[in-house]
Amino acid sequence: MKKIPNKIYLSEDEIPKQWYNVRADMKNKPAPLLNPGTGEVMQFEDLRPVFCDDLIRQELDNDTPFFDIPEEIQEYYKTYRPSPLCRAYHLEKALDTPAKIYYKFEGNNTSGSHKLNSSIAQAYYAKKQGLKGVTTETGAGQWGTALSMACAYFHLDCRVYMVKVSYEQKPFRREVMRTYGATVTPSPSMNTEVGRKINAEHPGTTGSLGCAISEAVEDATTHEGYRYVLGSVLNQVVLHQSVIGLETQTALKKYGIEPDIIIGCAGGGSNLGGLIAPFMGEKLRGEKDYRIIAVELASCPSFTRGKFAYDFCDTGMVTPLAKMYTLGYDFIPSPNHAGGLRYHGMSPILSQLYHDGYMEAVSEEQTSVFAAAEQFARIEGILPAPESSHAIRAAIDEALKCKETGEAKTIVFGLTGTGYFDMTAYEAYNDGTMKDYIPTDEELEESFKKLPKINR
Amino acid sequence: MKKIPNKIYLSEDEIPKQWYNVRADMKNKPAPLLNPGTGEVMQFEDLRPVFCDDLIRQELDNDTPFFDIPEEIQEYYKTYRPSPLCRAYHLEKALDTPAKIYYKFEGNNTSGSHKLNSSIAQAYYAKKQGLKGVTTETGAGQWGTALSMACAYFHLDCRVYMVKVSYEQKPFRREVMRTYGATVTPSPSMNTEVGRKINAEHPGTTGSLGCAISEAVEDATTHEGYRYVLGSVLNQVVLHQSVIGLETQTALKKYGIEPDIIIGCAGGGSNLGGLIAPFMGEKLRGEKDYRIIAVELASCPSFTRGKFAYDFCDTGMVTPLAKMYTLGYDFIPSPNHAGGLRYHGMSPILSQLYHDGYMEAVSEEQTSVFAAAEQFARIEGILPAPESSHAIRAAIDEALKCKETGEAKTIVFGLTGTGYFDMTAYEAYNDGTMKDYIPTDEELEESFKKLPKINR
Repeated sequence: MKKIPNKIYLSEDEIPKQWYNVRADMKNKPAPLLNPGTGEVMQFEDLRPVFCDDLIRQELDNDTPFFDIPEEIQEYYKTYRPSPLCRAYHLEKALDTPAKIYYKFEGNNTSGSHKLNSSIAQAYYAKKQGLKGVTTETGAGQWGTALSMACAYFHLDCRVYMVKVSYEQKPFRREVMRTYGATVTPSPSMNTEVGRKINAEHPGTTGSLGCAISEAVEDATTHEGYRYVLGSVLNQVVLHQSVIGLETQTALKKYGIEPDIIIGCAGGGSNLGGLIAPFMGEKLRGEKDYRIIAVELASCPSFTRGKFAYDFCDTGMVTPLAKMYTLGYDFIPSPNHAGGLRYHGMSPILSQLYHDGYMEAVSEEQTSVFAAAEQFARIEGILPAPESSHAIRAAIDEALKCKETGEAKTIVFGLTGTGYFDMTAYEAYNDGTMKDYIPTDEELEESFKKLPKINR
Repeated sequence: MKKIPNKIYLSEDEIPKQWYNVRADMKNKPAPLLNPGTGEVMQFEDLRPVFCDDLIRQELDNDTPFFDIPEEIQEYYKTYRPSPLCRAYHLEKALDTPAKIYYKFEGNNTSGSHKLNSSIAQAYYAKKQGLKGVTTETGAGQWGTALSMACAYFHLDCRVYMVKVSYEQKPFRREVMRTYGATVTPSPSMNTEVGRKINAEHPGTTGSLGCAISEAVEDATTHEGYRYVLGSVLNQVVLHQSVIGLETQTALKKYGIEPDIIIGCAGGGSNLGGLIAPFMGEKLRGEKDYRIIAVELASCPSFTRGKFAYDFCDTGMVTPLAKMYTLGYDFIPSPNHAGGLRYHGMSPILSQLYHDGYMEAVSEEQTSVFAAAEQFARIEGILPAPESSHAIRAAIDEALKCKETGEAKTIVFGLTGTGYFDMTAYEAYNDGTMKDYIPTDEELEESFKKLPKINR
């Protein structure tokens, strides 16, 4: 048996040439998007004013198992992929566990996360359609950064609506986006009707993600040659992110490694969906069995405490309805430093899979997550993003269970990104001022009451 | 001929097992360190109160060509090495040049730079000597971060004196260091005699690197079980950093690539010295010829406008004297965002090599450097550190010369790190408020007058 290196790097030829569409192997397909006014299923033509044509085709296609990755995207992937599959030898030793721990590390690129896998695809299809540019929203800025990098590469105009409080208090990612040529506008702005309305009604407001989505959609739909793009939740995003899982699968096979448990953090579901896609495919086809675990915020527990129901994808109620695990469209998660996981809903694909019993979910409190992050950073070297650290927490816990039982299980988790732009969060942890928040049952019940009538 | 991938990754087995000591091949050895009081050559015993024993041996050894890299350091190297040698296909295309451009990228680790190559070695030898901990100074925090990571790994106490203005205005790297368990103290502090003195004489001072060095040295020499460590300039650091050049050489050989020009940014000289070491060895032994170019700040031009003379390594005059290209020990470089290159002196090894005509030097203004950084970021994806961007500027200029002459030269440059903690600098560039500064001849003449008498 070959010695397994600390980092398994595939060759460039081994970067996947096709994305895998897990929906093709699902018996129960994810429910279609609905028009919130009429309750009717959204068709290709209904979505065209907002999204790029080729991306809508990917969004609606539940049957094609593989999509060719266009050559131009493959070329860009080569600038930062393949990403390494790392063996956490040092962590295993520190935990004194018989478990074998691997992590797929997606943070070695300037966006600092896996988001680039989909942003480069979305920018490519926008360029191919002859568009001038794209619009989007961003909270802390991970998705906006990834999109601005992709747009710079394809010479597309990139307009990012950034939640005003982040724009002002977290200027670093804003400057990365500007360096890549994006226009970054604090939201609510005076550029859009919805922005002006919100500014008039709530003078001095620091904005919200819901408001930023509404502005980005309005900007796209009122300007010739623009479309709106989104970095998570959507089926197309899970499709693009399958590149993570496919590379992981190839690397594991190369060394004859059989995973027992696959773990990923889950906010909108893009990273988890991508990581598990090919493994879930094997499970759906009955070829293999794996434990697959989604790790979410205790303060925003869509899977573990949400409802499987039709809901808006945004708090502003401008999007179609998606059937998913949700805490209610206007559930405002308590402050948590893992901003990328603070989302009320969940990918419809993952929601269906969870509903059908193909995966598990756990929720973690942030102080416990940062303890795992610190331990991991000191031992394995990499300073992880708060989001990714949820998966680290769960992986460590599983490895400690193995220590008790003496089982030498193989654990694979997704390390989605680095925490270099999250040092305010680490500062709170270092200072001992970080708090945990768990919503009460009453809060959630209040929120569920507002779910769209179509569910009744 | 093998197709050259975008990124050449060596296997773990190909990480060097020995460091290469370029001094062994130098006919004119770098001048020894002198005691500033007596003018006598500093011997092993003279340096022991300040530095670790094994590191002093490496510092003073001008003859041994190779030093074994201890197993423990090799193990740590595997957590972030080998670093990729990248082919800048996209940049070549954008420049429309026949030149072939490669860069050795040292930024894919949490310290964000090449500094970890030496900090892990220095921490190892401190641990081996049975010390409790080490002290150091840091400006913007790159070296301090690398050292705190190394100390966390070897369970050593790490005390970092951080220039007060950076401590307050650039809290992010400070928090990375704290996350790795380091004690970070704003300098001048009340911990040391020299700190208290400076605070008393200059109430409200925001500190300087010279003052932080003095505090770190005092802390080490007045506490049992502590030594002082330094991240650049010293011979031992150039030795450790040879791992960069050795990997580069192996990767180039693997694909039959013969470089014509090798370029690196130069502040204290650690990255450049490491990158060029094996190539310089070939040149010194008359086996090969390369153009080797050091790129420095126009605002801090040690090579291009300095004197080759004995000088203090610090502004506080607490260190031994080193013979090097220097602008004078109390030359205060004008504000420049490439903090890592704002150093009045230069590695004695590189100084001797430059003096003997084995390498060239150019200086660049920062607005021109940031223009290159932005271009590189947009095309190649990676957002470079301001320091590294000096090498990018020079590499682009050489590639453009090739475009004029039609020569297909092979250019290799060192991309020492990422700019994720330097977004204030990029903000100034994005806003158009960045300024260039060049010292006048008169300023330099004034500074040269203060050079130690021993030179006369």
